[in-house]
Amino acid sequence: MIPGLQAELASQFDIHFNRPELLDEAFTQASYVNEHPHQGLKFYERIEFLGDAVLQLTVSEYIYRRYPEMPQGKLTRLRAAMVQEASFAKFALECHFDRYIRLGKGEEKEGARHRASLLCDIFESFVGALYLDQGKDAVVAFISRVIFPKLDAGWFDHAIDYKTALQEWLQRDGDVHIEYDLAAETGPENDRDFTMTVAAAGKIIGQGIGKSKKIAEQSAALQALTSLRGQQETLVDHGRDQADN
Amino acid sequence: MIPGLQAELASQFDIHFNRPELLDEAFTQASYVNEHPHQGLKFYERIEFLGDAVLQLTVSEYIYRRYPEMPQGKLTRLRAAMVQEASFAKFALECHFDRYIRLGKGEEKEGARHRASLLCDIFESFVGALYLDQGKDAVVAFISRVIFPKLDAGWFDHAIDYKTALQEWLQRDGDVHIEYDLAAETGPENDRDFTMTVAAAGKIIGQGIGKSKKIAEQSAALQALTSLRGQQETLVDHGRDQADN
Repeated sequence: MIPGLQAELASQFDIHFNRPELLDEAFTQASYVNEHPHQGLKFYERIEFLGDAVLQLTVSEYIYRRYPEMPQGKLTRLRAAMVQEASFAKFALECHFDRYIRLGKGEEKEGARHRASLLCDIFESFVGALYLDQGKDAVVAFISRVIFPKLDAGWFDHAIDYKTALQEWLQRDGDVHIEYDLAAETGPENDRDFTMTVAAAGKIIGQGIGKSKKIAEQSAALQALTSLRGQQETLVDHGRDQADN
Repeated sequence: MIPGLQAELASQFDIHFNRPELLDEAFTQASYVNEHPHQGLKFYERIEFLGDAVLQLTVSEYIYRRYPEMPQGKLTRLRAAMVQEASFAKFALECHFDRYIRLGKGEEKEGARHRASLLCDIFESFVGALYLDQGKDAVVAFISRVIFPKLDAGWFDHAIDYKTALQEWLQRDGDVHIEYDLAAETGPENDRDFTMTVAAAGKIIGQGIGKSKKIAEQSAALQALTSLRGQQETLVDHGRDQADN
């Protein structure tokens, strides 16, 4: 058993494994197994193979349902941004998974513990272990805390462009009319600056300047998103304060 | 509603959709929607996005459990062979899905109905629809009839080499001792032929010749597989005959 890991999962996520040997497997690299040849240890790769597919499906299903009008191309780009190595490595760190990986001495020395590729693997293998131990619903509950909130926080906006991100954000709870308007054209004929505003339900919520209307629209959408999310975070923080009291 | 499709699914697979509109979506290409603009139709691409991930997971989980000793690299190669376009296109034909695709006239003329890429898409979108309508277990039941028997039939052996395929086949129901032995070396020193035999539980089940021992082993494993599968098919056919009578 890996010291501290089960307590960490219990306190962070209220996750309790029925078969902790799956956790041991998920957090053990081949280099560690090679250094401890007579303990019958398993390393994480097979379970990671499964976890990878579990994450693909659970993330796909979430964005498929959440964005009922989003075309396939955008769904694919969004999923790719969410399930990439850099994202999973960050999630692994956030969950403190780096502290519990069992590595061989050589790998440890070379800094493998902080390598994005290993952290990504461990995130996947943890999800594979959770799936084997408790099924898909437990995985969905876990990534609902670790991955999905990042959608609202804007981590993956670049994958679907800011105008789409703003639209998805505003229309989460129903249809809202969104309009982009040209507010000003300035500068000489051959070096124009365009100022676009974006309005939701008739109220201007963002403004942007750019060398084309398209760029100005993206900039207006980003400003609107930033400001709306700022307001939401304040609300969330406020909610938290109240809950704490 | 697409004429005949529900009857086909009922008679072939005993599958009955609760929401047949999901089936319509899964079998309709964008070109058809464009030709019928006022019917509020949906085309298959979003549902295919989901189906693709469902197939990845269900196939991964099946081979993960079925081959408990198979290392990740081989699992990955095997999955890649199983979920590729050419495989899915064949499964779609076998299920007669080609008959029910709704296409625009131009696409029909250009032969899209028989194109592997479209057949593969439709196989995936059908699985997506089945998943949305009835959940993962229904998908597993379906692909247990359409995909998994192909493993035993040798469709994907090339992905994992014949020695591995033979081993997996023989050890489906428990451990069996497998041994390769050099039976003969013939020909001149600089142009040797090696004959290898393969034995299971002490009984020779295949023999192969090659310019190296490795090649001869692969050839022996292939011969053993072919002959074992021939025997099994005879048994299966016999069983079928009896069931029919």
